[in-house]
Amino acid sequence: MTYTVPSPGPSPDSYARTERSVPTRHRERASYDRELVHSILDEDYICHLGFVRDGAPVVLPTLYARKGECLYLHGSTGSRPLREADGEPGLQVCVTVTRLDGLVLARAAFHHSLNYRSVVVHGTARRVTERGELTAALDALVDGVVPGRAADSRPADAKELAATAVLRLDLEEVSAKVREGGPGDDPEDAGLPYWSGVVPVGRTYGTPLPAEDLTPGTALPGYLKNR
Amino acid sequence: MTYTVPSPGPSPDSYARTERSVPTRHRERASYDRELVHSILDEDYICHLGFVRDGAPVVLPTLYARKGECLYLHGSTGSRPLREADGEPGLQVCVTVTRLDGLVLARAAFHHSLNYRSVVVHGTARRVTERGELTAALDALVDGVVPGRAADSRPADAKELAATAVLRLDLEEVSAKVREGGPGDDPEDAGLPYWSGVVPVGRTYGTPLPAEDLTPGTALPGYLKNR
Repeated sequence: MTYTVPSPGPSPDSYARTERSVPTRHRERASYDRELVHSILDEDYICHLGFVRDGAPVVLPTLYARKGECLYLHGSTGSRPLREADGEPGLQVCVTVTRLDGLVLARAAFHHSLNYRSVVVHGTARRVTERGELTAALDALVDGVVPGRAADSRPADAKELAATAVLRLDLEEVSAKVREGGPGDDPEDAGLPYWSGVVPVGRTYGTPLPAEDLTPGTALPGYLKNR
Repeated sequence: MTYTVPSPGPSPDSYARTERSVPTRHRERASYDRELVHSILDEDYICHLGFVRDGAPVVLPTLYARKGECLYLHGSTGSRPLREADGEPGLQVCVTVTRLDGLVLARAAFHHSLNYRSVVVHGTARRVTERGELTAALDALVDGVVPGRAADSRPADAKELAATAVLRLDLEEVSAKVREGGPGDDPEDAGLPYWSGVVPVGRTYGTPLPAEDLTPGTALPGYLKNR
């Protein structure tokens, strides 16, 4: 399929559209706005990392964090994608982050939908080898899950740093997709006796459970109380 | 990498292990148990579908439902993966479902982790063309999100059925991965003054919001009250 690229270059406000970052379906839901992309990425910390192995797709969940215009992806040395990203030319990946916001119930089964915000990043991931960048990336990964935690834990030592692998993926070929609002029933279904509307969906955090061997006298830190 | 397959065939209780369904990392977290796989799949309805396009990976979120030993994946006619799955030999896919259960805070930054349950399915997806199977799959997709809803909405008509595409993926090459329990700090970190434990994470549903054009007099159905 060919698709005429409507806006070839990146700008301070938006990512460049490319043939594969423009969806074939529901183009009206797609966006290349940097601020929107960043806001979706910064709300989550679990992505689905796709790569190709022996010609077949592989999709694995992993932790990520954004710093400026790059994503850092967590891995362990020895894992398949990490080993492949270790040298040149890097590993071709697709990283997808999906936030589910609502269940959309229309009168017609056909018009049922989900409200969501997703980001898809295409590019080449490379292993972070520079020690300063690796340390900063690991801090970002820990703080992405629990803001404030990196400074309140024992930092990784040299052996641990060597056993951790982080991939870096620059945000260049990126798109967001957003579906929001109520159901889109057809006018001819207006009078049907089925409830229609949206059920909001979100992520919730429960009461923190201390470890069995919690260091005696350790209080629950403030950054866990506000969640 | 070669890996000696420890259990070559499928059984009534478990899926066959294959070279790609056995993870290279944390093998102790992997399981091929059918009941466990089904329980994880049945708890969610959003998966990440991976496929290869022009040699590069693509990962998209989509809706799925399980019926026995197959997964049905929702799509729209015209979307890329659906078009490619339309004929023979089908579309090679990897479908991953991830349930996040907890944030694991260890004293050491290195031992931070997530509690999760995930399922990875490898295989060939094919478009469902038989009308009875398509209708049943669409009902399963609607009921997978809101149990009881398929019977309480207007069924798809012939035009809508033609505009909906569903992929079928048989559950044959499947593995689950589970991380549970508390942090695994090293004994030498035992006395460090950092809080350690688990923050439970779950999905939450809010109060249903009626559509602006809700059919007057339509009460909130029982299957939405219990959520």
